[in-house]
Amino acid sequence: MTDYFCMDKAALMREQQALLAEYGRYKAMGLRLDMSRGKPCPQQLDLSMEMLRMEDYIGENGVDARNYGLLEGMPEARRFFAELFGLDAKEVIVCGNSSLSMMYYLIDLGWRAGWADSVRPWRFCNNIKFLCPVPGYDRHFRVTEYFGFQMLSVPMDENGPDMDLVEELAREDETIKGIWCVPVYSNPDGVVYSTETVQRLARMQTAAPDFKIMWDDAYCVHHLTDEILETANILEECKQAGCPDRPVMFCSTSKITYPGAGVAAVGASEHNVRYITKNMTPMLISYDKMNQLRHVQFLKDKAGVLAHMKKHRAILEPKFRLIKDTFAAGFAGCGPIARWTDPKGGYFISLYLQDGCAKRTVQLCKECGVVLTGAGAAYPYGLDPQDRHLRIAPTYPSLEELGTAAKLLCVCARLATVELLLQKAA
Amino acid sequence: MTDYFCMDKAALMREQQALLAEYGRYKAMGLRLDMSRGKPCPQQLDLSMEMLRMEDYIGENGVDARNYGLLEGMPEARRFFAELFGLDAKEVIVCGNSSLSMMYYLIDLGWRAGWADSVRPWRFCNNIKFLCPVPGYDRHFRVTEYFGFQMLSVPMDENGPDMDLVEELAREDETIKGIWCVPVYSNPDGVVYSTETVQRLARMQTAAPDFKIMWDDAYCVHHLTDEILETANILEECKQAGCPDRPVMFCSTSKITYPGAGVAAVGASEHNVRYITKNMTPMLISYDKMNQLRHVQFLKDKAGVLAHMKKHRAILEPKFRLIKDTFAAGFAGCGPIARWTDPKGGYFISLYLQDGCAKRTVQLCKECGVVLTGAGAAYPYGLDPQDRHLRIAPTYPSLEELGTAAKLLCVCARLATVELLLQKAA
Repeated sequence: MTDYFCMDKAALMREQQALLAEYGRYKAMGLRLDMSRGKPCPQQLDLSMEMLRMEDYIGENGVDARNYGLLEGMPEARRFFAELFGLDAKEVIVCGNSSLSMMYYLIDLGWRAGWADSVRPWRFCNNIKFLCPVPGYDRHFRVTEYFGFQMLSVPMDENGPDMDLVEELAREDETIKGIWCVPVYSNPDGVVYSTETVQRLARMQTAAPDFKIMWDDAYCVHHLTDEILETANILEECKQAGCPDRPVMFCSTSKITYPGAGVAAVGASEHNVRYITKNMTPMLISYDKMNQLRHVQFLKDKAGVLAHMKKHRAILEPKFRLIKDTFAAGFAGCGPIARWTDPKGGYFISLYLQDGCAKRTVQLCKECGVVLTGAGAAYPYGLDPQDRHLRIAPTYPSLEELGTAAKLLCVCARLATVELLLQKAA
Repeated sequence: MTDYFCMDKAALMREQQALLAEYGRYKAMGLRLDMSRGKPCPQQLDLSMEMLRMEDYIGENGVDARNYGLLEGMPEARRFFAELFGLDAKEVIVCGNSSLSMMYYLIDLGWRAGWADSVRPWRFCNNIKFLCPVPGYDRHFRVTEYFGFQMLSVPMDENGPDMDLVEELAREDETIKGIWCVPVYSNPDGVVYSTETVQRLARMQTAAPDFKIMWDDAYCVHHLTDEILETANILEECKQAGCPDRPVMFCSTSKITYPGAGVAAVGASEHNVRYITKNMTPMLISYDKMNQLRHVQFLKDKAGVLAHMKKHRAILEPKFRLIKDTFAAGFAGCGPIARWTDPKGGYFISLYLQDGCAKRTVQLCKECGVVLTGAGAAYPYGLDPQDRHLRIAPTYPSLEELGTAAKLLCVCARLATVELLLQKAA
């Protein structure tokens, strides 16, 4: 095969014909695959079924988890998540099945009532803004957009967000109230924030006294290699920098046990924990403490979680490898028309195509019955300014489905690229 | 014994001395009892342990309840709650473990974004008001107060809230945005709303186009006698009256299975359900659907729930009887210094003392180690204007503890009454 960029128009048209023929064969297969979300597969869910056999729901403090009470969570569950966060149990609130709903609640709290360190609630500020490292997590952006905040994109590099830009923006504009971060195996690029990035986030000057780092540690134990990659502790760094109330940390067992019925937790300064639980008191008597106890009994501690995550890795690593191998073969010899990430953990692979090719590729796949995450989903307002990024979610489909989908994706991406080059040549 | 109201000062002082001696004996017992909340007792919680043995979490539609998805709940769970509500499954959202958090969310929604039938969000209205039938549920009042709404008390009678007053207020004041209702075995008086009350609530003119009936059907199956008392269907009545978006219904299994780990549900017009779930989408991917399936498999349907509730009744009915018998004996011969309710279901008995005696009685009990619900808790802002109402929660303590506490309560209430009469005599 020849590098697409070296092909003349006639060669491109021949390549297009060949690709269309191949595409037609996929179309005839009547595929029906959804690769749009980072969902665990059934075998992953089966790993935790033993957890459900628990029969004793009295906590270590004698509290009956079945009854009302303990808004901040069972003490053993607070200690469990404290170890995952690297915090003290007093700095943890253990919640229900959704960390997203806690992020939403805390954005709502800042907007409606303000934080303990707010001069006034965010809603009294015209034109609130939030920093959104891109590519990033679409559900973060959606919450921000729902509350009417303006989203400012900040590019990511291999160390995390562009900190020169973050520092400059946060220092100069007091309407910038926070930043979304997925510090470990970031969604979707798989970046692990460097220690320097974490320290600069903690130490930077912010014009807003109530600037919040929304630290979504969704993939903190979701390793795909033997390397255990972790970041510096954002709360510890913020304490040292004199702004302990700046970060709010989130994690959950959604991708450890069950996406639908896991346990989420919030980590923050004791001052923030008191402020948050005080505000939550009118809303809720307690979260599902039975599920909290179930999780702690089953996973035990961080070592137990890491051992459990190795079983997930055994299922997931071949899927990630298959995607990368298929991309390597499927784009071989076409020239530099695509590059993709090689994450050491997390749930996604990013595929970067030529500018202007992402949407068309998604459309071509869809017409063959394979649903990818919408092009642009990893950017605020769903707008990838270069229309080049695709988020690949390899976890849910079977290896066989995944192989077919990845091969089809290569054909579609090449077809989109050839179309683009033909347009340019016209 | 003589009627307190017929005693002269010397007789009252003798009675006070006798009561103080009796009080001293209770004090010496070193009691430590918490009767402040309507919590099920451990034996009630044991009734549902079989539910936890479930192993199959694939729903009737093939959906894996363990994974993400289905914000509106599993279809079998929607059907289950639809039967309890008397609605269609499409009119139901099945949620997490807390109906309170759904009430909070919907008050927040109305305030922040408005309802589908709002001209503008409630927050743009200065001085929002809510009608609060009294005595009522303190947590309803707390949510209302947290959002800064003014609470207008409406007296309850044996048919529900005073509808003449409700109609007058709702018709004349467009800043009145809703009313809290516990229509069956109301908290705390045990009143079941009459059909006329339900119809008048549905048919009344409201100055606010987005007036909401917050219909907390917390005790809809919590019968304590052979009578199955139910109300007319508020949504059906509102549909007939041409205002289907007026009511929002709530119920939960908190006092059917587990207070900490039950399943809550919201019932409303399809239009409202669509509006609510659309707004919830940025907040949450799905509630705990495993727990939803567990509940449906265990309780099956309304007949299954009613059969299960008979087991609760067998535990609770003797506790309610003991309270009533102890009050009858403890206040015998004192004259009309106290009256109490005889509820046919629910979780509470109301005890009405002489004006000005409730707080003092609670204080006297507390000094003996028995914590009652705070006097005034059943009134907005915690202020019982007559300081006469006590909410008795007989469910949690054992029969033995309950007997002791009820006897002590009689002594304390009599002492408070004698003190009051002595003050008047002075």
